[in-house]
Amino acid sequence: MSERVVVVGFGPVAARLVEGLLPAVRRGSVNLMVLGQETEAAYNRVMVAELGVGRSTAEALAIADAAELIAEGVDVRLGVTVKRVDRARQRLVLSDGSTEGYERLVFATGARPVIPNLTGINPDPAHPVLPAGVTALRDLRDAAMLHRAVTARQRVVVLGGGVLGLETALAAAEEGAQTTVVHSGPHPMGRNIDRGGGAVLNAALRTAGVSVVSNARSTAVEHNGPDGNFSALLLDDGSRIEGDLLLLSCGVRPRIELAEGCGLPVAAGILVDHRLRTHHEPHMFAIGDCAEVRCGSSGCPDCKGATAPSGLVGPGWRQAEWLAGYLEALAEDGQEAADSLPPLAKEPPGVVVLKARGINLAVAGDNSAEPWDDILCPSPDGLPHDRLQHREVAQWADPGHGRYVKMTTRGGVLQGLVSVGMPRTAAELVVLFERGAELPADRSLLLRLDGTDQPAGANNDPARTVCRCAGVSGAAIEESVASGCSSVPEVSKATRAGTGCGGCHEDIKGIIEKHFQGAVAA
Amino acid sequence: MSERVVVVGFGPVAARLVEGLLPAVRRGSVNLMVLGQETEAAYNRVMVAELGVGRSTAEALAIADAAELIAEGVDVRLGVTVKRVDRARQRLVLSDGSTEGYERLVFATGARPVIPNLTGINPDPAHPVLPAGVTALRDLRDAAMLHRAVTARQRVVVLGGGVLGLETALAAAEEGAQTTVVHSGPHPMGRNIDRGGGAVLNAALRTAGVSVVSNARSTAVEHNGPDGNFSALLLDDGSRIEGDLLLLSCGVRPRIELAEGCGLPVAAGILVDHRLRTHHEPHMFAIGDCAEVRCGSSGCPDCKGATAPSGLVGPGWRQAEWLAGYLEALAEDGQEAADSLPPLAKEPPGVVVLKARGINLAVAGDNSAEPWDDILCPSPDGLPHDRLQHREVAQWADPGHGRYVKMTTRGGVLQGLVSVGMPRTAAELVVLFERGAELPADRSLLLRLDGTDQPAGANNDPARTVCRCAGVSGAAIEESVASGCSSVPEVSKATRAGTGCGGCHEDIKGIIEKHFQGAVAA
Repeated sequence: MSERVVVVGFGPVAARLVEGLLPAVRRGSVNLMVLGQETEAAYNRVMVAELGVGRSTAEALAIADAAELIAEGVDVRLGVTVKRVDRARQRLVLSDGSTEGYERLVFATGARPVIPNLTGINPDPAHPVLPAGVTALRDLRDAAMLHRAVTARQRVVVLGGGVLGLETALAAAEEGAQTTVVHSGPHPMGRNIDRGGGAVLNAALRTAGVSVVSNARSTAVEHNGPDGNFSALLLDDGSRIEGDLLLLSCGVRPRIELAEGCGLPVAAGILVDHRLRTHHEPHMFAIGDCAEVRCGSSGCPDCKGATAPSGLVGPGWRQAEWLAGYLEALAEDGQEAADSLPPLAKEPPGVVVLKARGINLAVAGDNSAEPWDDILCPSPDGLPHDRLQHREVAQWADPGHGRYVKMTTRGGVLQGLVSVGMPRTAAELVVLFERGAELPADRSLLLRLDGTDQPAGANNDPARTVCRCAGVSGAAIEESVASGCSSVPEVSKATRAGTGCGGCHEDIKGIIEKHFQGAVAA
Repeated sequence: MSERVVVVGFGPVAARLVEGLLPAVRRGSVNLMVLGQETEAAYNRVMVAELGVGRSTAEALAIADAAELIAEGVDVRLGVTVKRVDRARQRLVLSDGSTEGYERLVFATGARPVIPNLTGINPDPAHPVLPAGVTALRDLRDAAMLHRAVTARQRVVVLGGGVLGLETALAAAEEGAQTTVVHSGPHPMGRNIDRGGGAVLNAALRTAGVSVVSNARSTAVEHNGPDGNFSALLLDDGSRIEGDLLLLSCGVRPRIELAEGCGLPVAAGILVDHRLRTHHEPHMFAIGDCAEVRCGSSGCPDCKGATAPSGLVGPGWRQAEWLAGYLEALAEDGQEAADSLPPLAKEPPGVVVLKARGINLAVAGDNSAEPWDDILCPSPDGLPHDRLQHREVAQWADPGHGRYVKMTTRGGVLQGLVSVGMPRTAAELVVLFERGAELPADRSLLLRLDGTDQPAGANNDPARTVCRCAGVSGAAIEESVASGCSSVPEVSKATRAGTGCGGCHEDIKGIIEKHFQGAVAA
């Protein structure tokens, strides 16, 4: 007896689910089908910009090998979309007209880029038609467009000041493109960082060769280039930002149409409970960028303050791993056994790290408070504040040297952090944030990690998380190196570290180098 | 042949001049008269608040001994005022009706407290009549009033948020009075420190038991106490700040009436050139709080940006010492020889250090710039800023722990500093400020001095200035201790260190203790 599981979507999160289900497929307890819209099997979409600037290859981005999976018995269908879900008959209607039945259905449809409503581009969110020279940099074809512009040292305009837009702009500028970031706030990353960090970031971007146009309201895309190519982005103040390529980096929205079309409850994403089951339909699931974990129980502490899908790959991978175990238990041990598994752990609050060669930036939690906010308002009863509950903000600002740190604590524990230009302080603060550890009373101690007199690699606590996407510790990476891995791809293959956003590649290199230096010294 | 020198005023600055002229008096080349308005000879007015809270004695405050000076041949007149100066006849008309001739006249008339224009007190600046329980804390009688209030643990209201008002308020609170500071700005010391330092100072004052009423517009003094004593300060918002004693600490104004009355040019103070000579009348001089050094030559770089008298005792003492040498040369070697002496050196920019047990605060220079001011406005030509001229502001704010530092530099050299709650950082910054030394590129290095892991007494560079009023180095104090001085008064007697504001007494004690510990260890 074999259970028919169909996965809609074949991105990195779906690939992890498929990988997790392979043992059950091999045992014959799961009959697995995966449906991919693109003609390629899953690849690391997070690294598309790296590919575009010529720092990576399509091979390095590949996550799944369709032929290998087919050989393992997985029914892989590429270049096909699901037109609709017939819930009553438990069947999918595909774009090629065929239908496929399912017993368990997993939505892993991901997200699509937000296409801003500008004159000159078609704003239909489901089927955007972009003029030549305009791309949202989402797939391998988009990467090729960027690559042509970068190698020709053309002018690249990035619309959007979020972390992905900045990373792309910085990488493109480093590789030789003339890059301008246009965004609507007073400083980039307005959703993440505070005014102080934003000011230092602004300056750092300029130093890195990226022009920044802030407080911009864009109104239209002009395409007067050869063959109707993009020529300029027009702003409402009448100014024109000229360029050869426009990268739209305005965020993403979960792809929920399929689920919504068959009547499943949705919010920003497809609503699922802590077992990733859609509401009212426990044999349908959603994972990754299309899924919004919110169980619907009003008293649930984990769902209090729950937000839309994070857009990060790490949480999706953890969901895929958990769901693989759950589906396997369902197929092999039955409902009761599966439900006795612990539900998906609550995702810790996210940490945003800007991946760029010239700029170190980390931000997490709530950074809206300023140092003076609380001190200016003594407690109304005149008594000293309760140390355990009192919010405190410490801040180091040295914008002349591109350095900025803000630590927001409650009871001494970090609730928010911003660090620009201080890589070791950032790394330490991220560790303290993720562990919920108490900061030293003298917060300035943390700044010393970036002192000129500190030896390199000061933070080598083996328990620290090096790869945040895949959740791999320094100790695990060291072990893989000790067992013979001597390059980042080898370490990635052995431990999965570095397979996500790529932000830890330098750290992995450092661990490898240190190991072999130690071997030489010994 | 002996030259008749008359000094009008007998405060600490006049006393230093008299002392400096004693050799010439002994030799008979100078015939010296000093006229004091009070019945006491010169005493340390800066320490009157210390006396008021019971931490010092009238004996310890005494600076000059009238009997001793008379024995030396000085004509000391106490309890006498000068009614007017007859410049044509070079004679003074005294309050007792007598007249006295002079060849050289020195104004050392000091300053008087500003009496605010409040209903209930007489605002005549020349002859203020204050109700019972209201004092400007200027002389020994005022100190006695404060002392009675402090020993009775009464409510003391300090009007004014300047450094002297705060020092008095803090000392009174520590000694048991219920103290409230009422001031007009958003935070105390508004003329000296910036918003950030002010916020931390505000909190520190509250922690030290001093209530602070900010943004206050006082309108009237209510005296409904016993025998018409002060009972409350009334504000324009209708509120009443009740108390038993009102200390007016609203600044001082140079006493210039006498000089102005005889036609000498004045601004805020009596205008003098770099030889301390009044304009157009080179045999008349002014020193100390009544003197404003501004030579009148439009191209003079030293007078560019010159401001009103500082109100600090150190500059007055340096003027007195210089003038003693000049008057001696005039009397003994003639005009030409005297004028060949180097003129008075330009006073370095002042450093304000709050003297209080619970709060460490130092401030100097211009602190109006905020970290983001310059970074937000890149140079118009898009080129990197000239490092030598570029202004940079670095700031550490940890108000939850009462710590704040702001360093404003140009070309790496301090133009302004604020330090609250970080005594060693403050001491180091003051040294760097006074020397015009370049800061380390990593400004956060300076914060380490106040790290919990730093040994006490980290700053023991012997060349550092310990007593800023008298300009005495650590090395000079150490030498006096090595030669047998074993207490602060002995060191003060031998070196003059500690005879001014008293802010260095703890440092002197530390040097003495260290010396004797070393002796025991050796």
